[in-house]
Formats: sequence, C-alpha cells, structure tokens
Amino acid sequence: MGFQDASLSEINQIMEQAALASQVYGKMSLISRAGFMRAIAGELDAIRETLLITAMEETHLPQPRLNGELNRTIYQLNSYADACVAGNWLEARIDTAIPEKMPPKPDIRKMLVPLGPVVVFGASNFPFAYSTAGGDTACALAAGCPVIVKAHPAHARTSELAAGAIMAAAGKCGLPKGVFAHIHSSGFEGGRALVSHPAARAVGFTGSFSGGKALFDIASQRKEPITVFSEMGSINPVFLLSEKIRQEAEVVAKMYAASITLSAGQFCTNPGLLVGIDGPDLEHFLDILGSEIQHIKPSSMLHPGIAAAYREKKALALSQQEVRLVAQSDTQAEALEGIPTIASVHGDAFLSNPLLHQEVFGPYSLVIRCRNQEQMLAVARHLEGQLTCTAMATPQDIRDNPQLMDAIGQLCGRFILNGVPTGVEVCLSMHHGGPYPATTDSRYTSVGADGIKRFARPLCFQNWDDQFLPDELKNANPLGIWRTVNDQLTKEPITS
Amino acid sequence: MGFQDASLSEINQIMEQAALASQVYGKMSLISRAGFMRAIAGELDAIRETLLITAMEETHLPQPRLNGELNRTIYQLNSYADACVAGNWLEARIDTAIPEKMPPKPDIRKMLVPLGPVVVFGASNFPFAYSTAGGDTACALAAGCPVIVKAHPAHARTSELAAGAIMAAAGKCGLPKGVFAHIHSSGFEGGRALVSHPAARAVGFTGSFSGGKALFDIASQRKEPITVFSEMGSINPVFLLSEKIRQEAEVVAKMYAASITLSAGQFCTNPGLLVGIDGPDLEHFLDILGSEIQHIKPSSMLHPGIAAAYREKKALALSQQEVRLVAQSDTQAEALEGIPTIASVHGDAFLSNPLLHQEVFGPYSLVIRCRNQEQMLAVARHLEGQLTCTAMATPQDIRDNPQLMDAIGQLCGRFILNGVPTGVEVCLSMHHGGPYPATTDSRYTSVGADGIKRFARPLCFQNWDDQFLPDELKNANPLGIWRTVNDQLTKEPITS
Repeated sequence: MGFQDASLSEINQIMEQAALASQVYGKMSLISRAGFMRAIAGELDAIRETLLITAMEETHLPQPRLNGELNRTIYQLNSYADACVAGNWLEARIDTAIPEKMPPKPDIRKMLVPLGPVVVFGASNFPFAYSTAGGDTACALAAGCPVIVKAHPAHARTSELAAGAIMAAAGKCGLPKGVFAHIHSSGFEGGRALVSHPAARAVGFTGSFSGGKALFDIASQRKEPITVFSEMGSINPVFLLSEKIRQEAEVVAKMYAASITLSAGQFCTNPGLLVGIDGPDLEHFLDILGSEIQHIKPSSMLHPGIAAAYREKKALALSQQEVRLVAQSDTQAEALEGIPTIASVHGDAFLSNPLLHQEVFGPYSLVIRCRNQEQMLAVARHLEGQLTCTAMATPQDIRDNPQLMDAIGQLCGRFILNGVPTGVEVCLSMHHGGPYPATTDSRYTSVGADGIKRFARPLCFQNWDDQFLPDELKNANPLGIWRTVNDQLTKEPITS
Repeated sequence: MGFQDASLSEINQIMEQAALASQVYGKMSLISRAGFMRAIAGELDAIRETLLITAMEETHLPQPRLNGELNRTIYQLNSYADACVAGNWLEARIDTAIPEKMPPKPDIRKMLVPLGPVVVFGASNFPFAYSTAGGDTACALAAGCPVIVKAHPAHARTSELAAGAIMAAAGKCGLPKGVFAHIHSSGFEGGRALVSHPAARAVGFTGSFSGGKALFDIASQRKEPITVFSEMGSINPVFLLSEKIRQEAEVVAKMYAASITLSAGQFCTNPGLLVGIDGPDLEHFLDILGSEIQHIKPSSMLHPGIAAAYREKKALALSQQEVRLVAQSDTQAEALEGIPTIASVHGDAFLSNPLLHQEVFGPYSLVIRCRNQEQMLAVARHLEGQLTCTAMATPQDIRDNPQLMDAIGQLCGRFILNGVPTGVEVCLSMHHGGPYPATTDSRYTSVGADGIKRFARPLCFQNWDDQFLPDELKNANPLGIWRTVNDQLTKEPITS
C-alpha cells in the first residue's frame, strides 16, 4: 500500500531506542502506564471515523463488526489500565525477617517487573483488537514494556493510523521516544530481524501455524532464547452428545450455522469440527444444519489471498478419501467471498488422515460421524491442542461420559458447555490460549488482564531498606494493592 | 554404582504409565495430593539415618549439612503441601454471567490444571533438596502431575532410597502405579528419551549450562515443544560500592570469605564475582579477604569429576591475560578437595574476555578492579543473566548510583542488599530463577510455592452448570479458597 519496508539498519536503530526507552518506561508508576493506555484509547476514539473507513477498505469487514471491534480495542486498553493500577497481576509477596531463626531468615519480597522490549505481530483477521493497538500491545504496555509492532500488510494503513494514535498519546504523556515503534515489512526478513535482535525480550503473534512456529524457532535458537506467545491455528472441535442432539437438534443446528459463518468464518475460535455419533439423530441435525447453510449468503473475506487460500484448502479437504459434501450456500460467490460449506467424514477416515485435522480458515466445518461413543472418545484423545472445545450435552450426557469430558478438557484452553466458541469475552477469567499447536505457551492467555503477565518476570528483593524498595513492596503499602504477606493475602500495611 | 541403565523400551513403558496415572492423579483433590506429599516427607524422615549415611558416602558432604538439607527437603514437601491446599496458586477466577449485556456475557471461570507427566533431573550438589524428592518433584506433585526422575549418577544410591520412600508413600496413599517413576541412565540417551517422549509435558533440571541447554534444545525441537525449567550456571556478582567498602571492609571481607567457601563453593548461588573500584579501599578489602581465605582449609568436593573440573577451570581462568592470583588456602589439598582461591583482574580485561564470565564451580571468586564507577556500570550492563546479584552498599551509595542499581536489577532474579547470596530461604516470596542463561524461563522460580505454577496451565469453563464444575470454581466455594470474583479477591461464596 505504498509503505516502505524498514531496512535492517532502521530496525536495529528502533530496537536500540526501545532498549533505552525500556529503562525509563519500565520504572514508571502503574498510574503513569495506565494514563498512557487510556490516552491511547482516547486517541483511537478521536479518529474513529477515519479508522473505520480505512479498515473497511482494507479488510472488507462490515462497518458494524469493525465498530464493535474498535470498541473492544478501546475497552481492552481501559480495562487493562484498570488492572494495571489494581496491581493484582504483580504477584507482590512479602516474607518479613525472622532474625531469631537459625540461620536467621532475611526479609524477602518479590513482584513482577517488565521483561523489556516486546515485538508484536498483528493479526490479519482483527485489524484493531489483535493488531497495532490491540491486546498484545495493551498487555505489554501495562507490564511496563516498550512495544515494536510489525504492521500486518493486509491492513497497513489502518495500522499506520493506530500507530499514529499511540504516538500521539506517547507525546502527550511525555514518554521517551522508543516506547512505541511501528514498521512495515512485506517479507519475512523484517520480522526475523526484530525477533532476532538482542534487545527483544518477548514476542506476541496471532496468525498462522507456519508463521507462529517460524518465530518460535527463531526465538528458541537465539543465543539468548526468548519466549514467543504465538496464538496459532485451532479447529475448535464441538462434541455433539447423543441426548442433546436427540432433544435439541434444531436449536443446536441453527446456533452452529450462525457460528460457523460469523464474519465469514474468520475467527480463531471458529468451530471447524463437529463430532457426533452416526445415526438418525445426527442425520436429522445435519439436515437442519445443511438447509441453514444453504440459505446463508457468502460474504467477503479479508483479502484475496485469504479467499484463495480458503478455496484451495477447502478443495483439498473435500478431495480427501471418504469426505462428503453435506451442504453449501445456494448463492453464487463473488471473487472475494467465501462459500459457507459443511462436509462430513466417518470417524475411521478422520482418525487416519492428519490433513483433516488442519484448519480451513473460513466458513467451513467438517462433521465427524463416529461409529459410537468409544470412537468419539478416540477422536478427543487423538486431536491436537485447541484454543477451545465445546460440548453440546445434557446433564445426563455429561454424567454418562466422564472420560470424554476429561479428554476434552485436556485438549483445550477453554471448554464451553452448550454454547458457541465464537465470541471471546474480555474479562479476567477468560483464557484465550491452549495446548500446542493452538499456542506456543499453554500457560498464558492473550485475552484478559492475565495476559499482562506474559511480559513480566519476578524480581526478588532480599534485605532491602524500606525506603529503597519499589512502592509496591513498601511496608506502608502506599498503592493499596493486594499482597501476600507471610502467606496471607492482605491489603494491610506492615507494622514492625 | 551397580544400577542398570533403563532401556528405551522401559522408558517408553514408564512414560505411558505416567500418562495413564496422570488421568487419575490429576483429578485428585488438593487434600489428597497434599496427603501424598506429607506421606513422602514422613517416609523420608523414617529412613533418615540410612539416607544420611548413604549420601555422606556418595557426596562427601558433611553430616550436619546433609541433615540440614534433608530437613529442608521435608519442609519443602510439607510447606508446598500446605500451599497446595490453600489453593492461591490455582489463580481461580470467576466472572458471572450478564445476560442483559449485548451480546450476553456468559458465565466464565478458570483455574490452573496439571500439565501432565513431568521429567525431573536431580542436581549433583543437592542430593536431597534438588534431587529425587526435592523441590521440582514436590512442585509437580502439588500441581497434580506424575513425576519421572532420572537419578543423578553421583548419588544414585541416595536417589534410589528417596525413590523408595516416594513409592512407599504412593502405596500407602493408594495412588496409581505410574504416579512416580525412577530410572538410572549413565549417558545422555536416557534423559533424551524421557524428554523426547510424547507423554512428557514439562521438564525440571538443575545443573550445568551445557546439560540444561541441551535439554532445552531437545524440548524446543520436539514435534510438540514443551517447557524446560533448567536452572543452570550463575556467577552471582557482588557489587562492592565505595562508601561501604571504605567503612566496613573487614565485615564484608569476612562475610564473603565464608560465603565463597561454604560447602566447598558448591552452591548455585556461590558469589563467583566481586566487582569493586580499584584503589586503596579495595586493596585493604582484598588484604583482609586474602588473609581470611589463606586460613580456610580446603574441603572435599562432591566427587572426583567435580574436583577435577574445579582444578581445570580455575587453572584456565588464572591463565587468562592479566588475571592475578590474590590468595589461596595455605593448607595442602587432598585429591578430592577444592582449594579456596581468590583472583583479580582489571575491568578492561574482564569486559573483553567472555571466558572470565563463566562459572568456576567451587570455592573460587574473581575480583574485578574497575577503573571507576562508570566501568562498574559497564560491567553490570555487560554481564549475562544471573540467579542473584548483591550490592554491598550504604544508603548514600544507593542514592549515588541509581543507574547501577537499575542495571543490577535487570540482570538477576534476586537482588540482595548487604548480605550474601548463599542461603536460599524456602518461602513464597523467594525467587530462585533469573534471566537466561541463569535459567531457561525467567518467569518461574524453582524454590517456594510459586514453583508449583511451572507445572500447570489455565483451563477456562464457559457456561457450565455449577454441579459439573470443579470444587475450586463452584458457587459455594466449598474449599474456602481465595478467588477473584468479578475482579474482586474474595473467599465468599457466590449467591445468585
């Protein structure tokens, strides 16, 4: 879109500036960090119209969806700012001295401190919420880390606008140059240079398995390995249990026709796999699902590359042995549109064909016809790590299938009961993550304020004078935060 | 010592049993896990005499030191059992539904769940506390993970005894076979097979950089990468600030002569580097330190390999350009003994010679004579990640050197003021970890109950009926644990 790729020397300069800014920004108070984040939210809101128009041109997503996503982005910044100030994420812990113990126990205190410069790669499918001013950026800034964003080329102008908003906020807050930087790079080299730079301390990525894994490998093989939080593909299996499908086929089918096709299926939590038990109940469910899908009009995908990839991957999936087309939209699709499609395959064929486990990014879902309950369990145990799994199940189904429920829980980061995986609520209890290959670090979330902890590490202070401790750990607890003092959670000051 | 190496097929069988046991043990209550841990502590205590005699024979460590270490090991098991039941580590979070929100907000809850089988490699220098029944094992069991220990060959019989205690406890607690396994393997292949096995979910290691890094590389390059918590080398720099050394040379020198030579210098927190500013004050400090060291008798090192490595690495360090011997013990050393030694080098030579940054495992410390305060800062910024750093400093020294204090904090996991790094208190606020290459994951500690979190990941439950939720997340809070409910920390039940 006319933006010039950053040169390697520019990237080096940016990373060195980030390292310098880190010394200043990392020491700033929680309130100052939160002020910066709220200022970014304000700047984004101030250019809302321009952002929406630009994003619509670049992503072909409809205005209401983009407006909702921008609201979510602003909410993330403000709510992570609140969490930043509340300070629970700091994991402040204090054990006071016991001089009479043998040997004497010193005073020991710890809290999380910033890791340093964080490199963020935006997602193609979320131009706001998981891109330049999105969740990774918000979490890193809350943690006290400078951020370097590589713009996603599919929405480079939107990214440039968001970057401008962040820089304007940085200027108004009097922050050092280097607290935020934004580069364009059309190939892989720019990203590689950012992740390889010695000043980089962590990486946030949302996108494809191949991209996320490549960054993970670069980061693991550095002289000084760093952590990459890649959120990669997920097919978000949905287990359709017998009694539920017998009793509520229509409700479930309609719910899922909508979920599969929401935003042209371009969500990382799109339900790409439905697992049921072959028989008349599943047949009935598929009839309704198929007829729903036939009536859903194709909608535009994010860009020609994604639309082409959808066509190709779907064709490849449909060409696999024993895969049958169940239904697709009756409406002819334009070039950029993705045709809603449902296919099915028997359990044996699915279990023996790893290609069918791969994500087909778009409005597509594969139904597995299991021979019986045992085969459904085998499928659950056979699948790779997922962001989400869902069980459509009555209480009796749950009681009848304890092993299946355990196996599903072990597979995913979020386990939904009688709902749809699309829609990722921004709140503290959300976990948007999951076992590999859904992400490269199953211990961390990229949604919700716990995501701040990705970019921080504990630092322990032993035998320090109160006057020199960070405010978070001072006896008087001047910030009024929750701390664990001698194994008890409390907001009380320490009186000696 | 006569123990047969496990074959690859035995290792496969052990790992498969661990995966099966994981299904059972991972679902057991916090109280049951804690009961198992306390039973292990009891079994260890019951065979105390045998353990001590065997460990003395194998490690040449003196009885009081081993007895203290065994007490610490028992304390770890009991105190992590307490922490396990208290449940703060679970990070239970609940956001209740808001049906009237658009779109409706579902009920979302999350907590940490076990990762699965954990492979533990014991440390040569801690036959009890960081070996078979040591900190990593205790943390993994508290997290709900089966443990597979590869015995350290330097204390294989001690390890076998500790493994027997764990298995006896498992039997008494009625736990599934496979909740704990213990293998011997003299080469690297056994360890590689354990870490490469698909059922392995995480690795705990304490030892050399080369060993820890090799495991990290294997684990990162698996088809499904897993996390390795390697605690590797550290030279634990001590910064001697001007006023402190001027005022208290004698106290500091005596304190450090003892710390450097404690347990023949065989602690991962041994102060291997003293950084001062050249001049008469440092000279005076070195005179006292040197004369202290001359009077300290050499003591036995863990085994002939470690004693030989100490001699070689020390000789290599002393052979480097501009490195000068300051003092060594006056007493002739026996074959297995390590001679307490202090050397010095100028700042320029240190900064330009990476070999001098390497750990010399034993009673050795290198003093860096910096030209001035700026060079001391340059040294702090130049050093690799460390488990600990120490500043010997008066309040005025701290006020005069804000940049140095920041740089030291960025270098390490634990920052000690006016103390010694040796002695790692087992408590929640302890952080025994640090930036690479001190460890492979700076976000986690291997000492203190926060170490439990290494072996767990969040699992989020969306829209679940209360009856099917784990007790930890049920409305009534039957376990009485701290939870964050709608962003507020509380032990209260949820009333709807």
